[in-house]
Amino acid sequence: MPRTAETTGFKFNHTMIRVKDPQVSLKFYTEVLGMDLLDTTKFDSFTLYFLGYDNSDGKLTDKEKATGRFDREGVLELTHNHGTESDANFQGYSSGNSDPGRGFGHIAITVPDIQKACERFESLGVPFKKRLTDGTMKNIAFILDPDGYWVEVVPARLSL
Amino acid sequence: MPRTAETTGFKFNHTMIRVKDPQVSLKFYTEVLGMDLLDTTKFDSFTLYFLGYDNSDGKLTDKEKATGRFDREGVLELTHNHGTESDANFQGYSSGNSDPGRGFGHIAITVPDIQKACERFESLGVPFKKRLTDGTMKNIAFILDPDGYWVEVVPARLSL
Repeated sequence: MPRTAETTGFKFNHTMIRVKDPQVSLKFYTEVLGMDLLDTTKFDSFTLYFLGYDNSDGKLTDKEKATGRFDREGVLELTHNHGTESDANFQGYSSGNSDPGRGFGHIAITVPDIQKACERFESLGVPFKKRLTDGTMKNIAFILDPDGYWVEVVPARLSL
Repeated sequence: MPRTAETTGFKFNHTMIRVKDPQVSLKFYTEVLGMDLLDTTKFDSFTLYFLGYDNSDGKLTDKEKATGRFDREGVLELTHNHGTESDANFQGYSSGNSDPGRGFGHIAITVPDIQKACERFESLGVPFKKRLTDGTMKNIAFILDPDGYWVEVVPARLSL
């Protein structure tokens, strides 16, 4: 199906999920998954963290990453409502994959070598929802982020 | 923060949400938002629809779009569990923005001319969660997709 003339230049910019503790989540998304922190926007009661892979081979400056964060695809926005990280009564967020709250499914990360990537996740102690060897689909895996959101891991090359 | 050597080549490939009626949702994402249908994968009880903007200026063939759908960013995967579209008892999916189910927030589309884009959404009868003129942030809007998921509309150029 062709895109319409009126939507020329549109981009699927970002996906937003809420997180309990930004320090834990930022560590996961930058150190485990390797995203850059593109920008941080602080408000009185919440803070937004914008993450994304550096597709410029390191050519972009921090300022260019920040100002260009709406002009690209593949951005992940983490919303931290201040206080949840130390609130003993905080129930945690729904991953979207069970009732109630079912609706949102997952985000997915493409990796050049899925075997190697999954071995590294194992060695880092990342919890798996589905290992490569589980189930019938042996070429994809699902790991869990610190809030329990599902993160699918898929190979770059797809044979159809 | 620099990405680690082990995550070189990683991409934020897609976001998955569940939809009640794929015909209604495909119309919205292709005709209103202008995405291409990259690939469809049918299973016995559910079907997956992969959507994304054609960033190749129309150079990619349908087959290249399908086989390359894991090797890019900005893909939206719609999951249709067969039967929900005609099930009178189906409660609908949580958008993630109210309890219970709070967790998932929204996806966002970048547009070159946000005024024009919002006028077109108005003329197409798309429901708004937040018009450009609502609230304090006058440079972003939120529309609702057919299942009630929030779709943020943001300008490509960001002044920080």
